[in-house]
Amino acid sequence: MIRDRFAPLLFITGTLLCGLAGLMLLPAIADASASNPDWKAFTGSASVTLFVAIGLLLTSRTEAPMTLSLRQAFLLTAGGWVTVSIFSALPFLLFNRDLGLANAVFEAVSGLTTTGSTVLVNLDAMPPGILLWRSLLQWLGGLGIIVTAMTMLPFLKVGGMQLFRTESSDQSEKVVPRAGQLAAYVATTYGTLTIACAVAYMIGGMTPFDAVNHAMTTLATGGYSTHDASFGFFADTNLDLISIVFMILGGLPFVLYIRAVKGDPLIIWRDSQVRAFLGYLGIAIALVALSIERADGIGFLDALRRSAFNITSIVTTTGYANEDYQLWGPFAIGAFFLCTLSGACAGSTSGGVKIYRFQIAWKICLRQLRGLIEPNSISQMSFNGRRLQPEILSSVLTFLFMYLASLVVLSVALTATGVDLLTAVSGVAQSLANVGPGLGPIIGPAGNFLSLPDSAKYLLAAAMLLGRLELLTVLVLFQSAFWKW
Amino acid sequence: MIRDRFAPLLFITGTLLCGLAGLMLLPAIADASASNPDWKAFTGSASVTLFVAIGLLLTSRTEAPMTLSLRQAFLLTAGGWVTVSIFSALPFLLFNRDLGLANAVFEAVSGLTTTGSTVLVNLDAMPPGILLWRSLLQWLGGLGIIVTAMTMLPFLKVGGMQLFRTESSDQSEKVVPRAGQLAAYVATTYGTLTIACAVAYMIGGMTPFDAVNHAMTTLATGGYSTHDASFGFFADTNLDLISIVFMILGGLPFVLYIRAVKGDPLIIWRDSQVRAFLGYLGIAIALVALSIERADGIGFLDALRRSAFNITSIVTTTGYANEDYQLWGPFAIGAFFLCTLSGACAGSTSGGVKIYRFQIAWKICLRQLRGLIEPNSISQMSFNGRRLQPEILSSVLTFLFMYLASLVVLSVALTATGVDLLTAVSGVAQSLANVGPGLGPIIGPAGNFLSLPDSAKYLLAAAMLLGRLELLTVLVLFQSAFWKW
Repeated sequence: MIRDRFAPLLFITGTLLCGLAGLMLLPAIADASASNPDWKAFTGSASVTLFVAIGLLLTSRTEAPMTLSLRQAFLLTAGGWVTVSIFSALPFLLFNRDLGLANAVFEAVSGLTTTGSTVLVNLDAMPPGILLWRSLLQWLGGLGIIVTAMTMLPFLKVGGMQLFRTESSDQSEKVVPRAGQLAAYVATTYGTLTIACAVAYMIGGMTPFDAVNHAMTTLATGGYSTHDASFGFFADTNLDLISIVFMILGGLPFVLYIRAVKGDPLIIWRDSQVRAFLGYLGIAIALVALSIERADGIGFLDALRRSAFNITSIVTTTGYANEDYQLWGPFAIGAFFLCTLSGACAGSTSGGVKIYRFQIAWKICLRQLRGLIEPNSISQMSFNGRRLQPEILSSVLTFLFMYLASLVVLSVALTATGVDLLTAVSGVAQSLANVGPGLGPIIGPAGNFLSLPDSAKYLLAAAMLLGRLELLTVLVLFQSAFWKW
Repeated sequence: MIRDRFAPLLFITGTLLCGLAGLMLLPAIADASASNPDWKAFTGSASVTLFVAIGLLLTSRTEAPMTLSLRQAFLLTAGGWVTVSIFSALPFLLFNRDLGLANAVFEAVSGLTTTGSTVLVNLDAMPPGILLWRSLLQWLGGLGIIVTAMTMLPFLKVGGMQLFRTESSDQSEKVVPRAGQLAAYVATTYGTLTIACAVAYMIGGMTPFDAVNHAMTTLATGGYSTHDASFGFFADTNLDLISIVFMILGGLPFVLYIRAVKGDPLIIWRDSQVRAFLGYLGIAIALVALSIERADGIGFLDALRRSAFNITSIVTTTGYANEDYQLWGPFAIGAFFLCTLSGACAGSTSGGVKIYRFQIAWKICLRQLRGLIEPNSISQMSFNGRRLQPEILSSVLTFLFMYLASLVVLSVALTATGVDLLTAVSGVAQSLANVGPGLGPIIGPAGNFLSLPDSAKYLLAAAMLLGRLELLTVLVLFQSAFWKW
C-alpha cells in the first residue's frame, strides 16, 4: 500500500523538522537578547516548520513496523536532506524579503551541505540571529552527513562506501551496535570537539560570539564566517593555527575518534586513509609554499604559514580564506583547483571525492598496468586490511567517472546561464565538493555569489546536494525502475 | 640475450626511418621546383635519417625469428613513435636555426600525432617545402595511428581496445588475416579518400597545392593549414562543407570502409559507435548553433553553418577554425572544451577519449544505478553485438580515470611553468586529445603556441604522444616490473 510505503519516511522527516524548528529558537533568542526585531523571522519560521512537522507526524501514524527497504532508505536520505534544506531557507526569506527565493535557498543549501558559499554581503553589520543561524546550519549539516555516511551510505552501497560498513559479520569491526546509539556517540564527539575549538578560539582572542560561530563552521568544515573578510578579519597567526588543527580534525573519520576513546588511541594513525590524507595535505602545502616563496620573494616560513591555512581550508573543504590566494600565481591557482575536488576522509564532515577513492583508484591503475605485461598475474587488493571485492572496485571507478562527468555536464549547463567558463567550472567543482570559494573575480575567495543569475544559483545548490549525498543517492531516483515498486 | 630482445625493435624502427627519409625528399622536390634553397634542409635531414636508419638495420641483423613478445610490442609502439618524432623535427631545425629545439620538437610531434598546434607564424609567406612537410607529417601520423590502433593496441589490451581485436576466434570477424596486409588495405583506403578530398577541394576553388595539403590534414584529422587564418582564409561555404564531410570520414573506423567495400556497405550505418558519434555530433552542432543564434541575433541557418564547421573540426579532433568561436559566448566555449575531450571513433585518425568508451561507461553507470535498488539483478552487457567481458569494463573505466587524472596532473604541472590556468587546462586537454587549438587569448583558435615557455612546449608534446598512444602504452614503461625481463 502506498500509505505504508511512505508513512515511515514522513514520520522520520517530521521528526527531523521538529528538531529543526527547535533549533530555530536559538537565533531567535540571540536576536531578542540583542533587542533586534529580527527574532520574529525565526519564531515565524519555527511556527511554520513545526506546523508542517506535526502534520507529517499525524498523517504518518501507522501500525506497520518501522523498518526501511532499500528504496525507502534512498528516498529518505535524498528527501530528508532536500526537505530540511527548504525549511532552513525560511528564516532567510522572512529576515530579509529583498533576498528572494533563489538566494534564500542557495544560502540554506550551502549551509546545510557545509559548502559555505554565500550570497550575503556586509556580514559584519548583520544581527546576531542570522549569523548564528548560518553557523548552526553548517554545524547541523556536518553532524547530519557524518551520521548519513556512517549509517545510510554503506548500507546503500554508494560509490564504494560499503567499505565502511560497521555492522559487518566481522564482530571486531562492530564499533557500536545500533544506528541510534552510533548517532549519539558521534554527536557527543562532534559536540566536544566543537566546544574545545570554541574555547581555543576564545583563548586566541576571538569574542565569545565569533568563537562559537567559527567553532561550529570549523568542525563542520563549512566555512561560513561572521565577517565579510572571513578569517582574514582576525589576521592572527595563532587563530590560523588553531583553525588548521580543528579543520584537520573535522576532516578525519569520526568513527576513529570513538574507537580511539574506547581504548585504541593509535587507530587513527594506523588508518591508511588518514595517513594518505595527511601526507597529501603536507605535500600540497609545501609545494604551494615553495611557489609563493619563489613568486613573492618572501621567507619560506611566512609562505608556509599562508599556504598551510588556505590549502588546509580547501582540502578539508572548509572554505575559509585569509587572503586572496589567486594572487599567488598560476601554479597556486591550479593547485587550489585540484585540492577543491579531492576532499578529506570518508566519514568526516568534509566533502569532495574523498581520499580513499583515490587510493583505491591508484591501486587499480597499478594493477591494470601490471596486468598489461603479466596478463596471468592475479593480485588480491586490500585496503586498510580489508579485502577489496570486485564490486567495490567497480563502484569506486564508476563513482569517479560519474563525479567528473557531473562536473563537466553541470559546468556546461552553468555556462548556458551566461556565466563565464572559469566561474562555471570552479563554481560547480566547489559546489559538488562542498568547499565554498571558486576561482576568478566573481566567486573567488574575495568574491560573492550574489551577482550570479538565479538559474545559476539553483544549479549550484543542486550540485551541492548532489555532491553531499555522493551522487548516486540522488541519481538512483532518476531511473524509472526505482519507481516500479 | 639483450641483443635478441632489441634486435627486432631496432630493425623495425630502422625500416620506419628509411621510409621517413624517403618522405623527406618530397618537400625537397617541392622547394627545388620553386627554386627555393630550403631544399637543402630536407636533403640534409634525409641524409642524417638514412644514415641512422642504415646503422640500425645493420646492427640488428639477427638469425632469431621475427616475433614480438608483449614487452617488445609495447617498447616498439612507444619507442617507434618517439624516434620517428625526433627525426621528423630535423627539417624544422635545419630550415630555420632560430626556431630552436623545443619549437622543432613541438611542431614535429604536433604534426605526427595529428594534433595540429603550431608554433610557426606567417605561414602564408613560407616556402612550399616546409608547408608540405607539415602536411605530410600529419598524413603519415594519421596512417600510423590507424595501423597502430588496428594491429597493436588491441593486442596490447590498452584501455578496452581489445574490443576491436580483428583476429578473434570468430572467423566472421576476420577482416584481413595478416597485419601487413591490413596495413596495405588501410593505406589504400586512406590514400583514395585523400585523393578524393583533394579533388573536391580543387573543384571547390583551392589551388592544387592548398588542396593537396588540406586534403592530407583533413583525412588525418590533423588540422595544419598552409595559412595563418586556417580555413578562415578561404571563407567559402562550399569548401567548409567539403571539409566537414571529409573530417567526418576521417573520424570513422577505417576497418568499416574495408568491410563496406568487401560487400557489406551498410555495416557503417549498423555500427553502434558510428551511430552514437553522428548523433552526438548532430546534437552538439545544434545546441551551439542555437546559442550563437540567441547571442548574435543571426539567422539559424547561418548559425548552423558556422557551428557545424567548427564543432565538427573539434569533435573529430582536426582543429581547423574559420573564425574565433571564443566570441560566441560562455556556453559555446564550454561546449568546445567538452568536445575537445570526446574524440570520434576508435580505429580512425581522430584522438580524444573516443566515443565507444563513453558508450561503455554509460552502460556501466546505468547498471550500477540499477544494481543499487536491485542488488540481485545480473545483466549481461554487450556492445556492437559483442559480449562485454568484466576485463573490458574495468579497462575502460580505468582508462577514463587515467585520462582525466593525466589532464589534471599535467595541467597543474603546466601552471608551474608560469602559464595561466585556462591556457594550461585547455592546452593539455587539446594536446592529450590531439585537437589543435586550446582556449583563451594565447592558444585559442586565433592564437599560436610560439609564446609559451620551452618547458611548456616539451610538456605539451609529451601529452600529445601520451594521448596518441592511449596513455597505457606509454605509462606501462614507467613500472619497474616492465624492465625485469
